[in-house]
Amino acid sequence: MISDNIFNSRSSYNNLYTLTKTIGGRLAGSPQMVKAEQWGEQAMKEAGADKVTLQECMVPHWVRGGKDKASVTFKNANGKTQTIQINVLALGNSVGTGAKGAQAPLIRVNSFDELEQRKDDLKGKIVFYNCPFEDTFVQTFEAYRKNVIYRAVGPSRAAKYGALAVLVRSMSNSMDNNPHTGSLRYIDSLPKIPAAAVGLRDVEKLDTLIDNGAQLTAQLFTNGKMLPDTVGHNVVGELRGTESPNEIITVGGHLDSWDVNEGAHDDGTGVVQTIEILRAFKALGYQPKHTIRFVLFANEENGTRGANKYAELAKQNNEKHILALESDAGGFTPRGFGFTVKQESWAKLNSWRPLFTPYGGDNFTDGGSDTDIDPLHESFGTSLAGVRPDSQRYFDIHHSAGDVFEAVSIRELKLSAINMAALLYLVDKYGL
Amino acid sequence: MISDNIFNSRSSYNNLYTLTKTIGGRLAGSPQMVKAEQWGEQAMKEAGADKVTLQECMVPHWVRGGKDKASVTFKNANGKTQTIQINVLALGNSVGTGAKGAQAPLIRVNSFDELEQRKDDLKGKIVFYNCPFEDTFVQTFEAYRKNVIYRAVGPSRAAKYGALAVLVRSMSNSMDNNPHTGSLRYIDSLPKIPAAAVGLRDVEKLDTLIDNGAQLTAQLFTNGKMLPDTVGHNVVGELRGTESPNEIITVGGHLDSWDVNEGAHDDGTGVVQTIEILRAFKALGYQPKHTIRFVLFANEENGTRGANKYAELAKQNNEKHILALESDAGGFTPRGFGFTVKQESWAKLNSWRPLFTPYGGDNFTDGGSDTDIDPLHESFGTSLAGVRPDSQRYFDIHHSAGDVFEAVSIRELKLSAINMAALLYLVDKYGL
Repeated sequence: MISDNIFNSRSSYNNLYTLTKTIGGRLAGSPQMVKAEQWGEQAMKEAGADKVTLQECMVPHWVRGGKDKASVTFKNANGKTQTIQINVLALGNSVGTGAKGAQAPLIRVNSFDELEQRKDDLKGKIVFYNCPFEDTFVQTFEAYRKNVIYRAVGPSRAAKYGALAVLVRSMSNSMDNNPHTGSLRYIDSLPKIPAAAVGLRDVEKLDTLIDNGAQLTAQLFTNGKMLPDTVGHNVVGELRGTESPNEIITVGGHLDSWDVNEGAHDDGTGVVQTIEILRAFKALGYQPKHTIRFVLFANEENGTRGANKYAELAKQNNEKHILALESDAGGFTPRGFGFTVKQESWAKLNSWRPLFTPYGGDNFTDGGSDTDIDPLHESFGTSLAGVRPDSQRYFDIHHSAGDVFEAVSIRELKLSAINMAALLYLVDKYGL
Repeated sequence: MISDNIFNSRSSYNNLYTLTKTIGGRLAGSPQMVKAEQWGEQAMKEAGADKVTLQECMVPHWVRGGKDKASVTFKNANGKTQTIQINVLALGNSVGTGAKGAQAPLIRVNSFDELEQRKDDLKGKIVFYNCPFEDTFVQTFEAYRKNVIYRAVGPSRAAKYGALAVLVRSMSNSMDNNPHTGSLRYIDSLPKIPAAAVGLRDVEKLDTLIDNGAQLTAQLFTNGKMLPDTVGHNVVGELRGTESPNEIITVGGHLDSWDVNEGAHDDGTGVVQTIEILRAFKALGYQPKHTIRFVLFANEENGTRGANKYAELAKQNNEKHILALESDAGGFTPRGFGFTVKQESWAKLNSWRPLFTPYGGDNFTDGGSDTDIDPLHESFGTSLAGVRPDSQRYFDIHHSAGDVFEAVSIRELKLSAINMAALLYLVDKYGL
């Protein structure tokens, strides 16, 4: 039985340990990325893949280039000039300030609307985007989706009005002061300005100072640099289908992570769940009707080049894809799946729901979009399923120093893999 | 809205911090128990209770009395005598070995059946109960319920055959080596022998040695002592009902904890959820139809005296109790409730389920039994509801040094309190 097999194995735990503790953070282009690819290939072979291939793709190569630092200076209640340090992390893909840093008055805005209202004040300033992360949304991803736009295009929108640099409130509601990085997307027609995320305790300090009328001058030192693209790989293991080998079911997570943590929940857990399902299927002698591909995608965090390459090769080879399943929402206790499927598939999915109830994963919702599988859907209209685990703890650690091995519960990780395996089994056996 | 109010408040988090970090472990009879009662009374008042009373009850006063230690000695592969230290914690209520310790050959048994088969070998020995904690049960409480009998009555059953002392495999499947304590119940007619729980990494070591044929001699040093009973209290806050003040709804958790940790999930979270619901109801101006009692029970861990006193006083005062709800399964993300209700109440409960779905707590199962509310049911047939959060992580930390503030997710804690508040509101408004 798949559930017992996965619960009784320490393989996923051991794999996660190796990936997080002996390889560590593995941003695209880094030496750790190369190590992780080699490890992934080996782990797929050990898990029993019929075949393991590496799909080459060019990936961006951004480097942080050193320690990010910031401070603010202001006149305190006694009229004396005071400086306090602020915990920051440069955003991925951002340019650095150079050794001299950026220094300018800090302007706080809570929204793009407010940015537009104050556009005439921004020239030569450092803009601090401070849109609160909604505590009241039960699903934390909704809060993330609402705010991530400030991280993604906030820097360019501030640059449009002459801002020197940007600070962004971390996309989190954690109780610690770890800044949460993540990628930005510069708009090509606008100047590229440095940008960094601020830890939440320091956001509170800044808020208190600004609310009390302090005029803040910020100093920011970041060293980010985009080097020439380099070679990365998707790692693709395969169990060949016995009846319809040319019809493909994909399951995967992404192998890359940010540089400032161990990439445990994002997305080490998706990686080891993918390998674990392969191992368990093989250990149980399960011979799928369709070909199942176990994919560790390259460069999800700051480029999506691996996902694009996977879809591009699929198109080139005229492959037929019937489902793509991704685990990239943390290795937490299962709640269910989001699905992007034809309307007529829902009856079948709903008939399967009771099978998932004892394993906690029976909440089937509309919307299976996930970064690494979206290009398949765009190319082929492939049905998508996104793993939707419990989201309460994810943004405490997402893209921050807190995303480490110790933050993963081995049972939650396994139970989620069990639900994933069940879905793959059902789709393989009964179609979708 | 109750959900927004609780999500937006840090009150439960701050209360948990105070209870765990400034008071800490608070076993019945300890100075920390007294501090916790004083704090609980104050916190109830600050949360807005119409009235706070302390219900006095005599509680057992067991003390650990020092550091628990154990080791095993054996001949290694080179024929040399070797001694390794074993991580242990004396079981609650156990007698100590005295300063000289207990030293005897170690006999491993995996079940009571095996104990009976080997009963003639046990005289003068130390028995090691090693029934594995079932990894394959999705609901970890099922594994606990299966094994806890070895901790509870294993010592007396071994004493029956002349054993000197007992070691018990910790009731956990954690990956660390923290022993997990908990109370035992001596059978009065049999000798009381010392007993301690063993950390799981050391269990693996012992297993390996025994499987390889080593003859182990164990040394155990514990200092447990039962002092005379002392005075403890249930802390009872009340919101008086506007329509049926003599009909009572109880919600609670237990204020005591083990001495070796901060009692965060067991049951600090139940305590602060109870106070949080009071605070939120009051803050929102909610005036319940029935009287709602917010109860912090004394002495759940090693005596249940607080729970018994609460039911005894209820009987004495001819109270009418319509529901008792307890949170004592950890402050994890909500899954649902177990209910002990009249058959005809299920239609109503099931009609409410969809209201809980967006908040994650819609899994309504049969069986609301919880230690502190069971006596009410026994006395009055009161309907019971037990909070049933996700259980994957609970036994990693239950009764061990790992049950600390940092193991609690503030959002999981709040979301579970939100589900509890919703249930209380519905029962107050529509009856059960």
